[in-house]
Amino acid sequence: MSTANTVDHEQYVVGVDYGTLSGRAVVVRVSDGAELGTGVHPYPHAVLERSLPASLAGTERALPPEWALQVPEDYREVLRVAVPAAVKAAGIDPAHVVGIATDFTACTMVPTLADGTPLNEVDGLADRPHAYVKLWKHHAAQGQANRINELARTRGEAWLPRYGGLISSEWEFAKGLELFEDDREVYDRMDHWVEAADWIIWQLCGTYVRNACTAGYKGLYQSFGGQDGEYPSAGFLGELSPGFQTFVADKLEHAIGQLGDRAGTLTAEAAEWTGLPEGIAVAVGNVDAHVTAPAAQAVGPGQMVAIMGTSTCHVMSAEVLREVPGMCGVVDGGIVSGLWGYEAGQSGVGDIFGWFTEHGVPAYVTEAAAAAGEGVHEYLTRLAADQEIGEHGLVALDWHSGNRSVLVDHELSGLVVGQTLATRAEDVYRALLEATAFGTRVIVETFRDSGVPVEEFIVAGGLQKNALLMQIYSDVTRLPLSVIDSEQGPALGSAIHAAVAAGAYDDVASAAKQMGKVRRHVFVPDEARAAAYDALFEQYLALHDHFGRTTTTMRRLKAIRRDAVARRTYEVSA
Amino acid sequence: MSTANTVDHEQYVVGVDYGTLSGRAVVVRVSDGAELGTGVHPYPHAVLERSLPASLAGTERALPPEWALQVPEDYREVLRVAVPAAVKAAGIDPAHVVGIATDFTACTMVPTLADGTPLNEVDGLADRPHAYVKLWKHHAAQGQANRINELARTRGEAWLPRYGGLISSEWEFAKGLELFEDDREVYDRMDHWVEAADWIIWQLCGTYVRNACTAGYKGLYQSFGGQDGEYPSAGFLGELSPGFQTFVADKLEHAIGQLGDRAGTLTAEAAEWTGLPEGIAVAVGNVDAHVTAPAAQAVGPGQMVAIMGTSTCHVMSAEVLREVPGMCGVVDGGIVSGLWGYEAGQSGVGDIFGWFTEHGVPAYVTEAAAAAGEGVHEYLTRLAADQEIGEHGLVALDWHSGNRSVLVDHELSGLVVGQTLATRAEDVYRALLEATAFGTRVIVETFRDSGVPVEEFIVAGGLQKNALLMQIYSDVTRLPLSVIDSEQGPALGSAIHAAVAAGAYDDVASAAKQMGKVRRHVFVPDEARAAAYDALFEQYLALHDHFGRTTTTMRRLKAIRRDAVARRTYEVSA
Repeated sequence: MSTANTVDHEQYVVGVDYGTLSGRAVVVRVSDGAELGTGVHPYPHAVLERSLPASLAGTERALPPEWALQVPEDYREVLRVAVPAAVKAAGIDPAHVVGIATDFTACTMVPTLADGTPLNEVDGLADRPHAYVKLWKHHAAQGQANRINELARTRGEAWLPRYGGLISSEWEFAKGLELFEDDREVYDRMDHWVEAADWIIWQLCGTYVRNACTAGYKGLYQSFGGQDGEYPSAGFLGELSPGFQTFVADKLEHAIGQLGDRAGTLTAEAAEWTGLPEGIAVAVGNVDAHVTAPAAQAVGPGQMVAIMGTSTCHVMSAEVLREVPGMCGVVDGGIVSGLWGYEAGQSGVGDIFGWFTEHGVPAYVTEAAAAAGEGVHEYLTRLAADQEIGEHGLVALDWHSGNRSVLVDHELSGLVVGQTLATRAEDVYRALLEATAFGTRVIVETFRDSGVPVEEFIVAGGLQKNALLMQIYSDVTRLPLSVIDSEQGPALGSAIHAAVAAGAYDDVASAAKQMGKVRRHVFVPDEARAAAYDALFEQYLALHDHFGRTTTTMRRLKAIRRDAVARRTYEVSA
Repeated sequence: MSTANTVDHEQYVVGVDYGTLSGRAVVVRVSDGAELGTGVHPYPHAVLERSLPASLAGTERALPPEWALQVPEDYREVLRVAVPAAVKAAGIDPAHVVGIATDFTACTMVPTLADGTPLNEVDGLADRPHAYVKLWKHHAAQGQANRINELARTRGEAWLPRYGGLISSEWEFAKGLELFEDDREVYDRMDHWVEAADWIIWQLCGTYVRNACTAGYKGLYQSFGGQDGEYPSAGFLGELSPGFQTFVADKLEHAIGQLGDRAGTLTAEAAEWTGLPEGIAVAVGNVDAHVTAPAAQAVGPGQMVAIMGTSTCHVMSAEVLREVPGMCGVVDGGIVSGLWGYEAGQSGVGDIFGWFTEHGVPAYVTEAAAAAGEGVHEYLTRLAADQEIGEHGLVALDWHSGNRSVLVDHELSGLVVGQTLATRAEDVYRALLEATAFGTRVIVETFRDSGVPVEEFIVAGGLQKNALLMQIYSDVTRLPLSVIDSEQGPALGSAIHAAVAAGAYDDVASAAKQMGKVRRHVFVPDEARAAAYDALFEQYLALHDHFGRTTTTMRRLKAIRRDAVARRTYEVSA
């Protein structure tokens, strides 16, 4: 700990991880990253997907399909409940807490007044759906996203390649345009269109700072080498929708804060909520996936962190700016200040395995797993682990939720080839595990071929528990696999940022070295197995390019499906 | 009944259907085909796949993989048990039975002495596996089949295109070569290499007649327009294996009998077995699939009969000889005398549906089916029937057991494309039903494009019970679907042949008209649905040609699988 302050007692920081359904606070020791106490608080309103309840809106208001709202007060409640609970569980003196930091889902957007008041808390707007927080998985702005992409392609906007050629409906501009077009009154009342990651920091320190991570990845803010950056131009925005040309200047543009910087200090009000000392450091906001990199001591070039859960998010820093086809974005200081942060993703991973065990596995397997005292995943993994590579005779494409990287096409779908009457559930299960590994290899090789080599693969997230899966990833990618040694990677990552913001470390890299936790090279590739996988990967790649780049089969099937559903709707309503 | 004899009492015939596990005798009224009584007898030795039991061989003898033997005495027992049982059940006077005929699995081969004694009944040979009947599904001669195909291609043998370019390991030459090479002593003791279809007739009438159907389809006998035909040449056979050049002349060649002809009359011994009158007509032998055509009144040009069970066999007569790519064979008088009989096939149909319901359907579906008092097939069919065409977003390839027609490639395998996390068992089930219909459409269109148009599609076999499946076939092929109106099509077909052999009708066509049973045009195509299927068929065809004709993906997967299994075997034994 070369640069930590020396004081006569241990110092602590609090990291708060805001997930989709709850907030989790962890008290962490500054000197070594020990996680001493945890508090979790589920959001009372969870996710509003069907309606605004009468308790909020006066009378219940139905929401259209694809909506997903949240209530800002739920986030404040995490500060009032989970933080004191974590401090209590840690058994420390809160006076020894020197800083607090948070990470959030993204892109999750809060429309606010000039002082940060969320619009749903403004008199007369509580029954307006557009006045609420739009959660990351609010997908009602797909039409707007399509138009943004179309126009950007037509105009040849220079920023498009930085985002793999496709802007998501989840991001700030699509959701902002939706608000502009669907509820102009709320749009006009709004002074700031704020990432929840920044809004919660504003609540803690009274200052609005726009973090470099979400500004870059979700807000299309392109900075180069720490210089002031640019947003999409007023000309582009005006062409998108008349009147929208002032969106950036009026609603979005704001001072940018680098990750690990201090956004401000804890206000008296927030000190009262949390039970922490007024005036301690509050770090610039951050995002769950990105903040996990320092928690896994993976902030250097070539260290790719994969947060593997229902889907996988890949983050990696590099000293160079390159256009990597199909990535989610590259952002100056997007993961750690001073380096280019790259993000890529696989749309479906654990959720494909989950779907298969739920809907594709026969009763005799479910029963055998129960008889063996195992879950279906464990049981199938054990059977699959007993196979020689390729013995199942299958190759699958892991596109059940489309493909984010590197094809950026959500019209793609899943495929299994090679089935015979001898094919059993464990065969398909293993083929699906392998397919996600092959998908990862495509990403790793694309980075390498673009001049951004991957040297180490560090896994965080729930799937790290599956040793077979981990070994497959190592063999398929021929990379050593390290595994984060914390069950609360994001909260630990936030705590690291809090320690840096508090001045306990010079920078995130130094803090990560002391406080991050990783088991290095837990899985290493075996050349014989890697060579056996090469033969399967060759077939995967042939399928990948055929269905992803050559034929329209999968897109046609989606179109046929849409037509069929429309026909059914017509019949029902006719 | 223009040509039936007029007598003062009803006349009857007996048809006996020899299946894989049992023989079924049916007593049928000559005047109208009424099925009056049935007797079934399971073969006591069923199929010998693991070993020759000690009761036969003295001590138990293990059999290699892929073997499938039967015991000829079991076939005689059917005559002694099932035929009298059928007569008794019919409540008729056996003196009024005027003829008997049989159909058999094929290619099922009996090695015999000159008098028809099966070699396993010869002193000192009861412990020799090669002395027994080789059932159709004895697949140990694949190596020999491969060499036959390779050499025929190299030499450009003119007969090869008549069999879709590929001779099966199940057929007379591959099994004969296996016997020649693997047990020369038994081969040398053998005087005749006899189809079981003909051997059973020999037992009934004491005369060996080689039926035109199996001689043509399984014995590579190519006749043209009723003239004497040719077998593969001695030169070809000698090049295949030194000494094998006399195979045809020594073991195979024999007088050919046309279907519906009289092979002879019932011997005193066989009359005693069956309880039928000595001297009644015994028809030339026949094959289960082919004999079904007259049972369904489908003996005219353009009437394609599909016997749909675990797999599908298509038979159709035509006035013209054409080379249809990928068919199983075209034989002069192969279905009815005087017309060219075409055969094609789909390697997997009902067994694919069965495999899916057994190994790919989750417990909650099995339970819901049980709760509804339905089988899983019924339940999934009901859910699938409720969908719009294309709503599932899937296309499958029905090649889980390879593809017989029209690709003739058993290295192909199954495929499902279009899966998402919303895909459910009924979606895949319906896609598999549709895939087999698309496979049928490819066959129908290939016949049409080769100058042998299909006008009507007549279904026999167990799958006719599934009305959704039948309607899909009609819509996909745009053909009216007729359905055989008998649950024992093959036995009824045999009875028709017995009536012709007995002189009750001039020919099989006339007898079929009176005695065959069909419900015509039970399913007719709907143009709107047919058009909707066209969109899916277009994608099926793209996949069909890509995986069947362009890429090596499926063949590579089989090779990878074989290598992996070999590696495992090595590891286990090392």
